[in-house]
Amino acid sequence: MRPIYLDNNATTRADPAVVSAMLPYFSEQFGNASSVHAFGSEVAGAVKQVRKSLQALLGSAFDHEIVFTSGGTESDNAAILSALDNQDGRDEIVTTAVEHPAILSLVEHLAASRGIKTHLVGVDSRGRLDIEAYRRALGPRTAIASVMWANNETGTLFPVERLAVMAHEAGALFHTDAVQAVGKVPLDLKATAIDMLSLSGHKLHGPKGIGALYLRKGTKFNPLIRGGPQERRRRGGTENVPAIVGLGKAAGLALIHLQDEQTGVRALRDRLEYGILKLGDCSVLGDVENRLPNTSNIAFEHLEGEAILHHLNRAGIAASLGSACASGSMEPSHVLRAMNVPMTALRGAIRFSLSRDNTIDDVVCVLNLLPEIIARLRASSPSWQERAHITTNPSRSTELSL
Amino acid sequence: MRPIYLDNNATTRADPAVVSAMLPYFSEQFGNASSVHAFGSEVAGAVKQVRKSLQALLGSAFDHEIVFTSGGTESDNAAILSALDNQDGRDEIVTTAVEHPAILSLVEHLAASRGIKTHLVGVDSRGRLDIEAYRRALGPRTAIASVMWANNETGTLFPVERLAVMAHEAGALFHTDAVQAVGKVPLDLKATAIDMLSLSGHKLHGPKGIGALYLRKGTKFNPLIRGGPQERRRRGGTENVPAIVGLGKAAGLALIHLQDEQTGVRALRDRLEYGILKLGDCSVLGDVENRLPNTSNIAFEHLEGEAILHHLNRAGIAASLGSACASGSMEPSHVLRAMNVPMTALRGAIRFSLSRDNTIDDVVCVLNLLPEIIARLRASSPSWQERAHITTNPSRSTELSL
Ligand SMILES: Cc1ncc(COP(=O)(O)O)c(C=O)c1O
Ligand SMILES: Cc1ncc(COP(=O)(O)O)c(C=O)c1O
Repeated sequence: MRPIYLDNNATTRADPAVVSAMLPYFSEQFGNASSVHAFGSEVAGAVKQVRKSLQALLGSAFDHEIVFTSGGTESDNAAILSALDNQDGRDEIVTTAVEHPAILSLVEHLAASRGIKTHLVGVDSRGRLDIEAYRRALGPRTAIASVMWANNETGTLFPVERLAVMAHEAGALFHTDAVQAVGKVPLDLKATAIDMLSLSGHKLHGPKGIGALYLRKGTKFNPLIRGGPQERRRRGGTENVPAIVGLGKAAGLALIHLQDEQTGVRALRDRLEYGILKLGDCSVLGDVENRLPNTSNIAFEHLEGEAILHHLNRAGIAASLGSACASGSMEPSHVLRAMNVPMTALRGAIRFSLSRDNTIDDVVCVLNLLPEIIARLRASSPSWQERAHITTNPSRSTELSL
Repeated sequence: MRPIYLDNNATTRADPAVVSAMLPYFSEQFGNASSVHAFGSEVAGAVKQVRKSLQALLGSAFDHEIVFTSGGTESDNAAILSALDNQDGRDEIVTTAVEHPAILSLVEHLAASRGIKTHLVGVDSRGRLDIEAYRRALGPRTAIASVMWANNETGTLFPVERLAVMAHEAGALFHTDAVQAVGKVPLDLKATAIDMLSLSGHKLHGPKGIGALYLRKGTKFNPLIRGGPQERRRRGGTENVPAIVGLGKAAGLALIHLQDEQTGVRALRDRLEYGILKLGDCSVLGDVENRLPNTSNIAFEHLEGEAILHHLNRAGIAASLGSACASGSMEPSHVLRAMNVPMTALRGAIRFSLSRDNTIDDVVCVLNLLPEIIARLRASSPSWQERAHITTNPSRSTELSL
């Protein structure tokens, strides 16, 4: 049986067209983009072209607003650190409790090592940002506000256009980690007040190890990685030409598939979700109406997520427990904790994340296999048995904390 | 005519076997190495294997001493910045005037932004480090000494094993930028006192955008890029699995070809160099006896390097003017200036850097074409004409400043 991959928020399959586009740049047009000879100038042209593809995908005003990095994490780190350096008299960060570790572990470190104050704005039980708390956190000392465009665990979308305007009103820069949004939702950066945006190639069927930082023209910037004069002195290091070319192809394909993401992928996700919810005693986590089209985070109450994953895995189905980054650690997801998801649900939360690579067969197959897995786990779960005894109404709501 | 690539210190052609090794990891085994399901665990195993290949190439004691990064520049930056954070009461850097910009532009920034004092130890006219000045620069405030293993412009090798011991005697950490040395000279790190070492995949026929930092067991380390718990919390960001696998293959091949690098590539380089020197009025820059086997930096006196490169390029031959990183800028190489190369020679310096991809035909072809190019340029160079009038001894030394 063909394995079924429903973990596209962790990473996506590189589109074969992306790989084909990259191939000539490894062993044929392999020059250093900064070299003056023919081997170099050929590839410099290709790199320039990719900046234009990203410009188109992001709706940015200028292609040189794109700085290539090694991925989303580097882009996030670079954005925050640069803002702290460039906003005189401002030394505080405003961000959310549900950011990716690429933001959260950095701000924790900045607090511990440099005493940088960070306001972690909370979310409600459906993962929606507390906008009033965000407004209160912004102030004359805020150097930067950073709010993700879409949450990687629940898919919840944040109103970043509006949050960016609010940050500007307080005189702060605004950054968004759009690693999960790029390629899944339409973007038009030039129509927003967003100063910086992070993206990562491998989340949109591009290669791993490449990302970009969008840097609005005029935004002061201090490089995180210093070396040669590459990227207009904003990021040192020999240009990763094959990966850049692959990212460009992925960006072009993402634009083409954007409509499908909003309709086709969403329809598959909804069908999967609907089918699972029929099992009862499970609920969708996150802002159901305002979500990425591909993501469904479902809490199976009174069950252990690890056990569900294990059985899915044995059946050839890959999904994820919270974010892939935190896997391995046994700590419950910081995102779900910030949402105050009750313990009974939190431990059994599974993230299904789809992509244009999935088919209706994938969904049907999961819906065929999952009921038995869940039934078996329920049969052996003391906590489930316990619950069964106390519940009186068998048709309880399928939405948590509504 | 097949183009001739003699700019392998700028970047190398990825070995086709490297590309083949990478290919399955883009669209088949594309999982996130941190994921718990089958897609993830498969690739995590491959990553582990690569650490062992690098361990073998570097002669390190443990495979977990290898941290994957996005390249040489990131490794260099991470090493220096981490050392400054972890050496209590020590806040100075000792390095050389001939390092790559990945070190020099960082230390300049640290001086300007944080008042960090850096001692830039000089070299003599043959590019050899002033060991006594190095010793004097080391002291109770030295956090880290960083000396490149091999210079990218001249190929000059530095006695890093001895320099590492001296750094330790002063209580400092020792880092070496071995980006140009790895794959070209035998290494046995466990037999040295080196604490940290940087390498970059694309300089050894591996992919661009991947590198490693060797971090001796027990060396305190602060990550430069913070995110998820990847690389034992020493480098956040989704593992760049295809590139890591490619680096592993490149490391394996480098070990196999190491002997050839020392003999075959060296023989080609020497043949090329010998042939060029016969043109007269040119000289080899750097420590001729103590050099990388693949590099020949030749100063054509009274000529303009740009003009030579231009004509070589038109003839399908790629070489370089100083380092590729500084190209585009019209400043003369900081390395050659540190060596006090006279202006008449410095402006006409061309770096030929070979690799196992070159053949004797390449060398013969260059030696056939170059005399005419040089003759034509000399004929149109006023400075050369001038010189011809004042020179009385036509068989002057082919070694500069001996
Ligand atoms: C000596 C040396 N150090 C560091 C680097 C930087 O490596 P990378 O461009 O892969 O970041 C290079 C090459 O550009 C180099 O030659
Ligand atoms: C929201 C978000 N931000 C940042 C990242 C980090 O991206 P990368 O792993 O490519 O560095 C990820 C994925 O891991 C993510 O989901």
